[in-house]
Amino acid sequence: MAEGGAPEAHEARPLTVLAALVAYDGTDFKGFQRQSAERGRTVQGVIERASERVAGEAVPVVGAGRTDTGVHASGQVISFASRARLDLGAWQRALNANLPPDVAVRGVAMVAPEFHARRSALARRYRYRILVDPVRAPLAERYAWRVAYPLDVATMAAATALLVGEHDFSAFGSSPRDRPGEGYRGHTVRKMLEASVHCVHGGDERRAGGSQIELRFAANAFLTGMVRRLVGTLALVGAGRLSLAEFVAILESRDKAHRGVAAPACGLCLTRVDYPADVLAW
Amino acid sequence: MAEGGAPEAHEARPLTVLAALVAYDGTDFKGFQRQSAERGRTVQGVIERASERVAGEAVPVVGAGRTDTGVHASGQVISFASRARLDLGAWQRALNANLPPDVAVRGVAMVAPEFHARRSALARRYRYRILVDPVRAPLAERYAWRVAYPLDVATMAAATALLVGEHDFSAFGSSPRDRPGEGYRGHTVRKMLEASVHCVHGGDERRAGGSQIELRFAANAFLTGMVRRLVGTLALVGAGRLSLAEFVAILESRDKAHRGVAAPACGLCLTRVDYPADVLAW
Repeated sequence: MAEGGAPEAHEARPLTVLAALVAYDGTDFKGFQRQSAERGRTVQGVIERASERVAGEAVPVVGAGRTDTGVHASGQVISFASRARLDLGAWQRALNANLPPDVAVRGVAMVAPEFHARRSALARRYRYRILVDPVRAPLAERYAWRVAYPLDVATMAAATALLVGEHDFSAFGSSPRDRPGEGYRGHTVRKMLEASVHCVHGGDERRAGGSQIELRFAANAFLTGMVRRLVGTLALVGAGRLSLAEFVAILESRDKAHRGVAAPACGLCLTRVDYPADVLAW
Repeated sequence: MAEGGAPEAHEARPLTVLAALVAYDGTDFKGFQRQSAERGRTVQGVIERASERVAGEAVPVVGAGRTDTGVHASGQVISFASRARLDLGAWQRALNANLPPDVAVRGVAMVAPEFHARRSALARRYRYRILVDPVRAPLAERYAWRVAYPLDVATMAAATALLVGEHDFSAFGSSPRDRPGEGYRGHTVRKMLEASVHCVHGGDERRAGGSQIELRFAANAFLTGMVRRLVGTLALVGAGRLSLAEFVAILESRDKAHRGVAAPACGLCLTRVDYPADVLAW
């Protein structure tokens, strides 16, 4: 307690850097990244409004993955710094009390001052869900892309496995604008750590929902639109409209001309961001 | 073809009775049953608007289960009669083309003239999902009731098993108004064919969504609000606030005083309606 009971100067409080695990239903968001108000509601925007209310001052927030309009997240990670004197549980409760129902802070951790949600991340993990069903399925389509034609999952899995390793993915996406200076090749080369496809059968709900296919991708980083364009192109492979050789040729061409259209945002979810275990272990 | 090519009189066409399997996301509906327009949008209302557009005349629709406001369905069954000359596939496509995205006709079948979706049904099956999680989970709460405290699934399963068989369920619901004349006992006695609880673990999404508990109930018919009040009371058992003996006493009392409050509608889904196999085999 300061002598004489005078309130401690705000500037004298130590600056604490915090990380938060964030989940959101992306349906009603124009993506993660803050935009001008007239361009729409964003996840970063609603979190920064909440954190400002909690801290009593503007608290800029950094996100590990800049998810697009309509993309969901169960494991987004954000970082921010504040002088507010709140313990971790109080931060979580206060943020959640100020967030809308479609965003929630699932955990808060104290991290080292140099932590940066995006730059400190080792890898991002995404899941994409496809529902194979000729008929609309209202209970599934909020979180899955419905495809009306059959897909050969084994062929899709063979194509997906070819993505693992370091590749120039420029056929499937573009480098974010604000990361210049990495050199020509560095711009669009990413290291795919895991890529898999498997079928999830509908069980006794089969009549009401067709079969579900789940694609999972982990990479050090992803190009803008990369997962959705990979999924759109893999669906062409699954439908027999592209051969495995043609898929490889598209990847190797670094040319956007022959790839499939991007799969819809609703099927995509950022499930996890990996950090070095001594930096952030969630 | 009528002689002379004159259009056949509408009345001369045979009346066909059809059954349709219907799925809907109940979030934005004031339940299944048609109401006055100012009381809100109902599933029956949007289906009857669609069927009228398809058939060119009013087509009253009967539903097997009168789901409440906010309750979902993956296997609702409706029946209706029409003189429109459309094959089954054309009926399905035309209805779906005229239905909003949150309702879909998953199948259409021709049935005997005496078929009635509600009266011909042998049993209804409901699923209720509980998410046990102290923190909001935006990707799960559209289709599950989030409970912030731990639940003992084994004790809940023991209580649930006691429901199987013929019981007077008046402690948990009331008889629909329009079924009088069944006598005192007949009013609120229902035969529970199956009742079970099991835990569905979250796998690698665990961090983002806690553990999920699924309750399943099948009965010849259900009282109004019965499943949600059973679930609300079983949650008290799971939380240790009611003993098994107290749960039995509530069931046997036929008294609404000590039951739990109804669990929220979002967790409930009508998954299936059973008919004699020779009547409708879906």
